[in-house]
Amino acid sequence: MGLLSEAATQALIPLAAAVGIGFALLQWFLVSRVSISGDPGKNDGFADNLMGDEEESTDEQAVVARCAEIQSAISVGATSFLYTEYKYLGVFTVVFSAIIFLFLGSVKGLCKPALAGAAFSALAFLLGAVTSVLSGFLGMKIATYANARTTLEARKGVGKAFVTAFRSGAVMGFLLAANGLLVLYISINVFKLYFRDDWEGLYESITGYGLGGSSMAADVGADLVGKVERNIPKTTHVIADNVGDNVGDIAGMGADLFGSYAESSCAALFIASISSFGVDHDFSAMSYPLIISSMGIVVCLITTLFATDFLEIKTVKEIEPSLKKQLLISTVLMTVGIAIVSFVALPSKFTLFDFGSEKTVKNWHLFFCVSAGLWTGLVIGYSTEYFTSSVYRPVRDVADSCRTGAATNVIFGLALGYKSVIVPIFAIAAAIYVSFSLAAMYGIAVAALGMLSTIATGLAIDAYGPISDNAGGIAEMAGMSRRIRERTDALDAAGNTTAAIGKGFAIGSAALVSLALFGAFVSRAGLKGVDVLAPKVFIGLLVGAMLPYWFSAMTMKSVGSAALKMVEEVRRQFNTIPGLLEGRTKPDYATCVKISTDASLKEMIPPGALVLLTPLIAGTFFGVETLSGVLAGSLVSGVQVAVSASNAGGAWDNAKKYIEAGATEHAKKLGPKGSDPHKAAVIGDTIGDPLKDTSGPSLNILIKLMAVESLVFAPFFAKHGGLLFKWF
Amino acid sequence: MGLLSEAATQALIPLAAAVGIGFALLQWFLVSRVSISGDPGKNDGFADNLMGDEEESTDEQAVVARCAEIQSAISVGATSFLYTEYKYLGVFTVVFSAIIFLFLGSVKGLCKPALAGAAFSALAFLLGAVTSVLSGFLGMKIATYANARTTLEARKGVGKAFVTAFRSGAVMGFLLAANGLLVLYISINVFKLYFRDDWEGLYESITGYGLGGSSMAADVGADLVGKVERNIPKTTHVIADNVGDNVGDIAGMGADLFGSYAESSCAALFIASISSFGVDHDFSAMSYPLIISSMGIVVCLITTLFATDFLEIKTVKEIEPSLKKQLLISTVLMTVGIAIVSFVALPSKFTLFDFGSEKTVKNWHLFFCVSAGLWTGLVIGYSTEYFTSSVYRPVRDVADSCRTGAATNVIFGLALGYKSVIVPIFAIAAAIYVSFSLAAMYGIAVAALGMLSTIATGLAIDAYGPISDNAGGIAEMAGMSRRIRERTDALDAAGNTTAAIGKGFAIGSAALVSLALFGAFVSRAGLKGVDVLAPKVFIGLLVGAMLPYWFSAMTMKSVGSAALKMVEEVRRQFNTIPGLLEGRTKPDYATCVKISTDASLKEMIPPGALVLLTPLIAGTFFGVETLSGVLAGSLVSGVQVAVSASNAGGAWDNAKKYIEAGATEHAKKLGPKGSDPHKAAVIGDTIGDPLKDTSGPSLNILIKLMAVESLVFAPFFAKHGGLLFKWF
Repeated sequence: MGLLSEAATQALIPLAAAVGIGFALLQWFLVSRVSISGDPGKNDGFADNLMGDEEESTDEQAVVARCAEIQSAISVGATSFLYTEYKYLGVFTVVFSAIIFLFLGSVKGLCKPALAGAAFSALAFLLGAVTSVLSGFLGMKIATYANARTTLEARKGVGKAFVTAFRSGAVMGFLLAANGLLVLYISINVFKLYFRDDWEGLYESITGYGLGGSSMAADVGADLVGKVERNIPKTTHVIADNVGDNVGDIAGMGADLFGSYAESSCAALFIASISSFGVDHDFSAMSYPLIISSMGIVVCLITTLFATDFLEIKTVKEIEPSLKKQLLISTVLMTVGIAIVSFVALPSKFTLFDFGSEKTVKNWHLFFCVSAGLWTGLVIGYSTEYFTSSVYRPVRDVADSCRTGAATNVIFGLALGYKSVIVPIFAIAAAIYVSFSLAAMYGIAVAALGMLSTIATGLAIDAYGPISDNAGGIAEMAGMSRRIRERTDALDAAGNTTAAIGKGFAIGSAALVSLALFGAFVSRAGLKGVDVLAPKVFIGLLVGAMLPYWFSAMTMKSVGSAALKMVEEVRRQFNTIPGLLEGRTKPDYATCVKISTDASLKEMIPPGALVLLTPLIAGTFFGVETLSGVLAGSLVSGVQVAVSASNAGGAWDNAKKYIEAGATEHAKKLGPKGSDPHKAAVIGDTIGDPLKDTSGPSLNILIKLMAVESLVFAPFFAKHGGLLFKWF
Repeated sequence: MGLLSEAATQALIPLAAAVGIGFALLQWFLVSRVSISGDPGKNDGFADNLMGDEEESTDEQAVVARCAEIQSAISVGATSFLYTEYKYLGVFTVVFSAIIFLFLGSVKGLCKPALAGAAFSALAFLLGAVTSVLSGFLGMKIATYANARTTLEARKGVGKAFVTAFRSGAVMGFLLAANGLLVLYISINVFKLYFRDDWEGLYESITGYGLGGSSMAADVGADLVGKVERNIPKTTHVIADNVGDNVGDIAGMGADLFGSYAESSCAALFIASISSFGVDHDFSAMSYPLIISSMGIVVCLITTLFATDFLEIKTVKEIEPSLKKQLLISTVLMTVGIAIVSFVALPSKFTLFDFGSEKTVKNWHLFFCVSAGLWTGLVIGYSTEYFTSSVYRPVRDVADSCRTGAATNVIFGLALGYKSVIVPIFAIAAAIYVSFSLAAMYGIAVAALGMLSTIATGLAIDAYGPISDNAGGIAEMAGMSRRIRERTDALDAAGNTTAAIGKGFAIGSAALVSLALFGAFVSRAGLKGVDVLAPKVFIGLLVGAMLPYWFSAMTMKSVGSAALKMVEEVRRQFNTIPGLLEGRTKPDYATCVKISTDASLKEMIPPGALVLLTPLIAGTFFGVETLSGVLAGSLVSGVQVAVSASNAGGAWDNAKKYIEAGATEHAKKLGPKGSDPHKAAVIGDTIGDPLKDTSGPSLNILIKLMAVESLVFAPFFAKHGGLLFKWF
């Protein structure tokens, strides 16, 4: 047994979750102190405001009122989108938990323990789904709450605006990390009341939590709302675009990362439950994944203070380095945290099961596994930054290629995307080799957890992007001065790179998580290995590697269809609403948002069905060997497609911004806005949008969700699967 | 033993090869009867010409002379390109055969039999390389010989022109198939003089032939010449473009398919040599792959007659169906041929070795294996046609998307490419499952051979494309009438689709061949299986799946660099050659061709090195398990990238042609040339060019060459490999 007693573990985990939630609420409170009531008396009531170094005319009540109005429109749109989405998801969740119950309940006949296990799996699924939805919803709420506040703070200087946007991101990050931990912790303790000493059964059921957490992210259509805007005239669609940002980039990304977090925790817990931790009933060691997450909350809290309190941002140039520093600080601190947790919570030596054989592992082995994941995340983050920030050569080369037109821009961008896969893949491969060699599949699961241990900071950085983006949009719509818009643009440009970094993290952790889930699936399905040269496995591998393409074809086509509907609606409004063309009347925002909501949600059904049905069909008709191949194939192929799509998109976007900003001699030659190279850059940016916002990120969900679904249904497939081969 | 005696086999194979070569020479003779001397007397000397139904003024001696001159320029350029390329390849071949000799010779100490085996492997490598180069060179020669002749025949009607272009393609197809078979047959018989009854050693050495055959296809840069032309003003570059077509599409594609053919034959022979055929010294059964190829030559000969003699083409609309019919006729006839060969050459029952275990196989099992490959080829061909021909909806949708600009065109094209992967992958998976289940790895190898058994027809169809394309170019440059150019354009449009079909075949067969080679490698390396869940294997799988992206990033960047150099040269010529701008002087073709030759060949070094060094590095430092993973990963991932790239490119090209031709109401709305949708279509076409002509096809070479190289070096890796893991 390790140094940490069971009682201490039972106290520390909920304490850390409480600290996280408390810190999130504090940040929310601090953001709320920025008034958007437009009452100058109240606004000036804070000493902070008087210190604003570059104060502008703060009593422009009309501007403030306009900002508040736009923010409210965005918030109403986003809320209505999410409510509509949750209606669909509610139906899906109920149906799918019934499927889980029926499939799993039927494995061992209809005996009582089997039914109870199936019921608990279904319950865990529901809990995961609800937690995911709640985290996404709260994230969207704070984001739409912070948009206009960031804009208004920009009047006082770039530092103020940055802090407001970053604090709002932190609310989202900490709420998600702490809620995820807390619900998981409570579920385990409640389930324990029934399962008692049957820890294998307990943690088998808990895997449902991972499935629930990630299946809510299957709303690949969510970001479509924002993407429809490109082909239609301005003004009408900006609200819809902002709604899309909040729904897709905030709620969608939150659901994605929450899914990864829940899945890696569940995979680690499940593997541990059939190892010596579970057999010896060592609760502290068993809870190692949860303690790592607890430590992560504390580390991220300290890291956040560096951005909001310890270091102050005074100029535009300091924004991107400050965000980068967040990554580095959290990684360094977390490494120390992992060391502490590993030496305190784990026995110095223990046994893991590795597909039938036993493996003796030392506590410092696990330290290396978790750290390998953590540092791989940093490498991916920095590599992504290199390929998507206009500070470095790759994006400048892409911008330069615009001289010879849109075609070369696209070719260079695609090539950049392909090239950007190299470093992350080698980093992930190294992490996999180290953690697999040291602690088999458990090593992979905790490596994934390591990468996600700083999720609160990661999400704060990530959510910061769309909040700044929206702040810029509001500034423009509210007709604020050029000076303020330059500030929000600078915030936004840094946000673009961090968004790409966030996507890099998401896909890197998804790869590790999926591998861990895949390993757990193979264990649970009772396979001794997955031989590529068995025909059943190889055809699975080949078809699995094809799925990301099929899936991307669907999601990319969805963007097109949704865009087309939006274009038609805008044309209709221009034709039927008098005075709209001359700008005398307001367009009908609500209908635009509704149309894109409906289109997006409808379009999300086919790709969602592909993801959810593939494991069921492969497992039921072709059996666990083929399904293993499918999982491995979609994993190794999907990672590449996702990374290349998201980096190519980020690079095109920033190449365009680079030309627009005209901050270097080179950029000035290519610009200004409206020049031929700029037009070519806009085409690249438009192509990149569905790649980086819809196609790329949704592939994470493809590979993770198929793996966790397979894990949950493994006993069913192992018993009843492979019908097709049985028939012939 | 089967019905066929050894003596009969020894007679039939060279006979079939001789028939193939004879038929090719006959076709060449028939093409040569089209005079380009411009002497009207001689031209009218043939009764054929008098039958031309739509004869134009045939005595326009100037036009004929101009055509001949252009053809000569193209031929000189292509020859000079290939000579330069062969200089590089010559050095490479010598160095690489020395490496083969040293690596393989060192496996069992420096004893005499090991050295002899290594020497024979190196010799086989040289033979394969020389045969590949010879086939490619002859193909280029006949193509550049036929270009202007096709143009001139177009004056007499579309049917005449079609037959000329198709006959020329057939020369290439039959020469390649027959030469490949003959050299392989002679090598086996010569090597037998030394190896005598050691058939395992004999066929192990013969695998070098496959490596040699495919390593000459590593000239991924070849097609760059043609691709540089898009961004530079007309006239100067058309010759370079045509040179590129002949070098890349004819010689390059020939080398690629020859490589597949040589590799699948060698993989099948090697696997058979360690099965009961080899142990029992049953020469006829052992030669089953060669007899299949012999039958293929006969079947293709009959098939060709359908296009050139039995059915006559009278209108433009009949061209594409006629080419499609070629595929169907050859497949149906070949199925009968396979049945005959399987029942005659094979014993009714025999034993294959499947990774240690034995497998009893019946002769009709092999019939199904070869047929599975053959019919999969047809499915891939038809699916490719559906996605790349403007007759069907996908291309029309892409054309339609041009209404909203270049960005939607690119998005729709990418999505089309992704979607087009689905059917081929399922077809390949089905073929793999059937043939693997029936006859293990031998089944896969002969399935690949089955797909390639109609290679003579496949290549004829494929080479027809660039020949027609060049004929069109010559017609334009020679200033021929609109009526004639419409005919050559129609020939060319059909050629575009068949080129895509050819690429589909190439990648499909590459997938099967690579799998067979991979299986043979695993056997030869002494592995009992390839478990994905072993960390060494999984990291290989992940990195292997990344290689196609790395490789594509290189080849796509190459296109850009080569294009840039060409643009600079053209600018230099416009600035320094007086009168060029006004069209009074001729540009300096030779320098343009030389520059693009040098650039292309220089650019081919990094991707070539990536392909050739990866197996050596992975095998030597990480060992055979990791290398297995790399091979499997690059195979399953590369197929997808290649198919999607080549179909997206084909679709963009034909979407543009569809708008230009304006043959339907829909197309007329989008056109004409120069309209906004047309401009958007041109951008898509330009992006598609490097994807379909450079990036896509060269991926075949990546996956095949790595597999065959691994197979050849397997004994070395098995003995000395995995240094890195041994050190730590």
